[in-house]
Amino acid sequence: MASTSSLALSQGLLSRAISPNGSENHASVPPFSVLKSTSPRATFLHSQRRASTSSHSLRPLVRAAAVEVTDATTDSTLVDKSVNTIRFLAIDAVEKAKSGHPGLPMGCAPMSHILYDEVMRYNPKNPYWFNRDRFVLSAGHGCMLQYALLHLAGYDSVREEDLKSFRQWGSKTPGHPENFETPGVEVTTGPLGQGIANAVGLALAEKHLAARFNKPDNEIVDHYTYSIIGDGCQMEGITNEVCSLAGHWGLGKLIAFYDDNHISIDGDTEIAFTENVDKRFEALGWHVIWVKNGNNGYDEIRAAIKEAKAVTDKPTLIKVTTTIGYGSPNKANSYSVHGAALGEKEVEATRNNLGWPYEPFQVPEDVKSHWSRHTPEGAALEADWNAKFAAYEKQYPEEAEELKSIISGDLPAGWEKALPTYTPESPGDATRNLSQQCLNALAKAVPGFLGGSADLASSNMTLLKASGDFQNATPEGRNLRFGVREHGMGAICNGIALHSPGFIPYCATFFVFTDYMRAAMRISALSEAGVIYVMTHDSIGLGEDGPTHQPIEHLSSFRAMPNIMMFRPADGNETAGAYKIAVTRRNTPSVLALSRQKLPQLPGTSIENVERGGYTVSDNSNGNKPDVILIGTGSELEIAAQAGEELRKEGKTVRVVSFVCWELFDEQTDEYKESVLPSDVSARVSIEAGTTFGWGKIVGGKGKSIGVDSFGASAPAGKLYKEFGITVEAVVAAAKSLI
Amino acid sequence: MASTSSLALSQGLLSRAISPNGSENHASVPPFSVLKSTSPRATFLHSQRRASTSSHSLRPLVRAAAVEVTDATTDSTLVDKSVNTIRFLAIDAVEKAKSGHPGLPMGCAPMSHILYDEVMRYNPKNPYWFNRDRFVLSAGHGCMLQYALLHLAGYDSVREEDLKSFRQWGSKTPGHPENFETPGVEVTTGPLGQGIANAVGLALAEKHLAARFNKPDNEIVDHYTYSIIGDGCQMEGITNEVCSLAGHWGLGKLIAFYDDNHISIDGDTEIAFTENVDKRFEALGWHVIWVKNGNNGYDEIRAAIKEAKAVTDKPTLIKVTTTIGYGSPNKANSYSVHGAALGEKEVEATRNNLGWPYEPFQVPEDVKSHWSRHTPEGAALEADWNAKFAAYEKQYPEEAEELKSIISGDLPAGWEKALPTYTPESPGDATRNLSQQCLNALAKAVPGFLGGSADLASSNMTLLKASGDFQNATPEGRNLRFGVREHGMGAICNGIALHSPGFIPYCATFFVFTDYMRAAMRISALSEAGVIYVMTHDSIGLGEDGPTHQPIEHLSSFRAMPNIMMFRPADGNETAGAYKIAVTRRNTPSVLALSRQKLPQLPGTSIENVERGGYTVSDNSNGNKPDVILIGTGSELEIAAQAGEELRKEGKTVRVVSFVCWELFDEQTDEYKESVLPSDVSARVSIEAGTTFGWGKIVGGKGKSIGVDSFGASAPAGKLYKEFGITVEAVVAAAKSLI
Repeated sequence: MASTSSLALSQGLLSRAISPNGSENHASVPPFSVLKSTSPRATFLHSQRRASTSSHSLRPLVRAAAVEVTDATTDSTLVDKSVNTIRFLAIDAVEKAKSGHPGLPMGCAPMSHILYDEVMRYNPKNPYWFNRDRFVLSAGHGCMLQYALLHLAGYDSVREEDLKSFRQWGSKTPGHPENFETPGVEVTTGPLGQGIANAVGLALAEKHLAARFNKPDNEIVDHYTYSIIGDGCQMEGITNEVCSLAGHWGLGKLIAFYDDNHISIDGDTEIAFTENVDKRFEALGWHVIWVKNGNNGYDEIRAAIKEAKAVTDKPTLIKVTTTIGYGSPNKANSYSVHGAALGEKEVEATRNNLGWPYEPFQVPEDVKSHWSRHTPEGAALEADWNAKFAAYEKQYPEEAEELKSIISGDLPAGWEKALPTYTPESPGDATRNLSQQCLNALAKAVPGFLGGSADLASSNMTLLKASGDFQNATPEGRNLRFGVREHGMGAICNGIALHSPGFIPYCATFFVFTDYMRAAMRISALSEAGVIYVMTHDSIGLGEDGPTHQPIEHLSSFRAMPNIMMFRPADGNETAGAYKIAVTRRNTPSVLALSRQKLPQLPGTSIENVERGGYTVSDNSNGNKPDVILIGTGSELEIAAQAGEELRKEGKTVRVVSFVCWELFDEQTDEYKESVLPSDVSARVSIEAGTTFGWGKIVGGKGKSIGVDSFGASAPAGKLYKEFGITVEAVVAAAKSLI
Repeated sequence: MASTSSLALSQGLLSRAISPNGSENHASVPPFSVLKSTSPRATFLHSQRRASTSSHSLRPLVRAAAVEVTDATTDSTLVDKSVNTIRFLAIDAVEKAKSGHPGLPMGCAPMSHILYDEVMRYNPKNPYWFNRDRFVLSAGHGCMLQYALLHLAGYDSVREEDLKSFRQWGSKTPGHPENFETPGVEVTTGPLGQGIANAVGLALAEKHLAARFNKPDNEIVDHYTYSIIGDGCQMEGITNEVCSLAGHWGLGKLIAFYDDNHISIDGDTEIAFTENVDKRFEALGWHVIWVKNGNNGYDEIRAAIKEAKAVTDKPTLIKVTTTIGYGSPNKANSYSVHGAALGEKEVEATRNNLGWPYEPFQVPEDVKSHWSRHTPEGAALEADWNAKFAAYEKQYPEEAEELKSIISGDLPAGWEKALPTYTPESPGDATRNLSQQCLNALAKAVPGFLGGSADLASSNMTLLKASGDFQNATPEGRNLRFGVREHGMGAICNGIALHSPGFIPYCATFFVFTDYMRAAMRISALSEAGVIYVMTHDSIGLGEDGPTHQPIEHLSSFRAMPNIMMFRPADGNETAGAYKIAVTRRNTPSVLALSRQKLPQLPGTSIENVERGGYTVSDNSNGNKPDVILIGTGSELEIAAQAGEELRKEGKTVRVVSFVCWELFDEQTDEYKESVLPSDVSARVSIEAGTTFGWGKIVGGKGKSIGVDSFGASAPAGKLYKEFGITVEAVVAAAKSLI
């Protein structure tokens, strides 16, 4: 420890040495600091940024600080004490819950102590402060680590009683980190690899905003993104996908700690994970640092972070070799400490081993006092930034307006007027093309609108024509190029969406390949990230590519998922209507299933109608009692409409209904629902080129559903529709059998 | 070309020089050959294997052969001609279909010509010959490459008329390779990354069988697995997952060609893919070779294959730099040749450019004659192997019996008797534990039964106690350790299942993480690979881990998927019954959703009943007219049964029905269905701790469904059941409201 004591520790010690009284507003704030400054000058972040990337300018500071440190041993002991506090808060909470994962917090306490106490900039009293550093615990099962840190740092979301109700009903401390439950938690993790992907999204968001909004005299966007990933994350394919992109994009302000503890649930990682991770990350374009002693090599950790910050053109992986369950005499370094409470006896043994005399959940006074400075420091950081923003706003009012919209989520007035509208006379087109008109219109009207495709931009029709590509050298571009990495794409978009409320990311692939990204889409839904999924080639209508590419069960599978809207628009108006809602509903992701094939603009559709989810497109009946109701979605609404015409020619009264979004229909009043689907009318026929699974609820016990309940086939689309019986004739026949 | 003309080519030429008459059975067979031998001696494969891994022993042969070659220039021209035949068959078929991907076949024709013509061992007239080399086109969109090769090699599945009906209804040549349509195609590819994962499974299967069955004097199992992967595959996370495992397992007989053409759909791979692939693969434990001239560097390709075979302890990646659309003067090396027909004019220009005077679909006579030897050679290879097997069977009857079961798919008589049965008095247990009893019983009874978990063996309860781990040094083990790589796990199991009909792989993770592997599971269903998915922790009943880990929509999402059986067993008998069907149905994958929590053994359940999918567990009514039908699955069948008891106490007639597998119920006769769910009884209540989506079809318009239609929460399981209303009281109340 002693002689190599580094910059960051020195500064922490220095601040304490100078300000022994610790009065709330000023005393514990260091008078000068590279990593945490309260200088009211609007340019401090700029100078900080320069300083952190230039080791030369720092050296005199380091030496000066080191000289002034009075009692390094005591203070190193205090760090130990803080680190052990984190360990025991995790141990105690898991023990009380009799459930949870103590191993990771015990091993990662040192690196995370340094991060939260010495490195990261945040305001505990406003977890949503825009310019905060972001932290993502990708190994989300170790969430007690993060709860302990938030607790020590002074976040109101995690008080002692919250720690005591870890993993209990209604608590702020659920079994994995959930952004929607616990302010201070940025994203929802647990499913492995999602977190690091979110972190890539957060870092992308920062790089993009910095490029768009920073000025030489005012770098208003400037934060780091940190993440802790474990062996489990490393094994997941999504991690390789997003880390390849992070390297490609040169996300220099992304710093990931790899908790290299050699243990996973099934035992030693030797049994399934013997690749050379360092070399892989170098191949992916990362800077790699190895901290060999992650258990108490505080200075090694500090030096690594410093080095990582100095590398501005690459993301950095800091491999930190740790002992899982560090401190537990009988369970450390074994899988048994990964995912279960230590047990009363082993907790006692660990207390003895680490010399911990405190009560369960007790934070020693000196540790408490040490951490207390983060509240005033954080407030000062935010106040400084606010002053800086005020100056920015004065000098760059237009940019400030845009940035404010992204920060606040307040959309520019009248944005929705940008959406195109259509009449039945407008030329027919594939909804994927109509979607592109919407995307380009929205990009102009909504500052935080951006996105891209997983190497299918020219098929998904997702290019924003007025913008360039987001690339390492052109990060202001709003076209994201994800390569063939669907899973990573979705999870990166979650990170972008959760960076700031006004970010509205969209991403695209063929609808069938939602199977590759479903885990990320579910996290969108769960974590209330309003990502827009632009999913083209939405049925057997894609034709020759065949059954590997033809979605069948996918509409149904998303209708079954909570908090996600599944749209299948039939034409231009419905496509625009779907986008209107997708943009408006920031806490609910949307999936748009769009056709490859050309479709007509239908009479009776409108943007407003889409908001009802299901609505009458045409009707020749009176008194809400048609002979039959024909219900279609997307490309089959046209077929339903044509069948309706046929039946009307034969004197039937027919209602044709579009069911563009089941979730929105579910939200309507019973009265409205009855007006569309009167309970007295049991003659109902649905048609949709996908599974009939789930339609029973809409057509009722006596209705009929026309769909495709097997896999598709490779042939031209028209042939497939005929062979699979998705035809006007089939609808007419089904209707007649019911009337 | 000339002076460096290599081993394999020389041999091809030699065989032609020596056997100019080409009579079907013998003439075109080379009298000695390293890569293809027809020596009737049973040990030939053994000597071949030694030879191919020892360059020393080959040299004299090479020289001898080279000396005997009469006209190297002509023959090199013949190779060119064969390569161009492949190119034009692809061009012509795509042109005729006006749909498809000519670019990859045009670029990969050289490497694939060498593979199919000079390297691979197969019997075109029996595509299912057990000991064939396997080939997987992971970049499946380039399927015309494979169809052209199968056509030239003499497979009956791809005749000229099949090439002419490329991508048409009912053809053998669909838009992506489909094993169930085209004999000679091993697996179903197209969704990127799946193919290389399947190839890892195929290579694992070979290594496993070789370790279990080969004898020093009779290496009865001995084949290579080849694959071509593209830039798209390389970007997918699943590829990294499975290649990490392939390196870990040391799959030395897996040789993957990476078609390094720098073009993907969105343009140059520079825009999204700039990592160092070679270095990444080295990090993953692969041997990496770079062929710089993949367009016509035939000898480079041959040398690379030779080198790859010599490296027996690692899989090999041969990076072959090619030009996509090679030969097309205006479209080569651009994305425009990737996925669309060249167009009449460019086809003409390409003909001129490559000097191709032949008609569309025409195979020049000398090319045809050159390839014709594969029919007799293949027959001889199989005959040799059959002789070898006869010797093996004589000497090792027990092993032969087991191996035959794996090769044929014929299960040992009475295997199903190994399954445990239970009575209501048997101790209650979690179905995940009961599942482990079945897995261990089946492993003893069924030789091809093997599998493992994605790092959750101790949670999924999937370890086979009588077996060791499949590892590099112990490949005879039947416990597969996949690490945290769900997607790769599923796709590897597809490869194992499709290696031989008697392989029955199972794989396991938490049910919610099917989201990570859904793309692979869909390919199981589509490609008729009878993988068994052991999915534990199947509801909010898992408790504290919270909503990231609690499946809600998953049961429904698989019920909606074609050709997959979704089981949710309630107790020991139902678990055993589910396994019985899962093992029996080799062309349909099964998903078993299993509880973390303990459940009682229920009266009325049985293995046989499970075969009906839905059946009556108890009933106190007469004449098929109960007052109410209560329907449960899995852990909620107990609740339904208890509610039934409550209602019966109040004098109601109640039928309790288990709906363990909807797909099997759908297969029953209308009469049987009516006997379980009489249409007159509309008072039906379903209870399942998952989404109610889809239950409308079962309970009908007047029934009620109790379930969980939002995300779950983190709390003890009992608390969650209460809070989410999955209770006896709720069922009783719902039933009363309907009676």
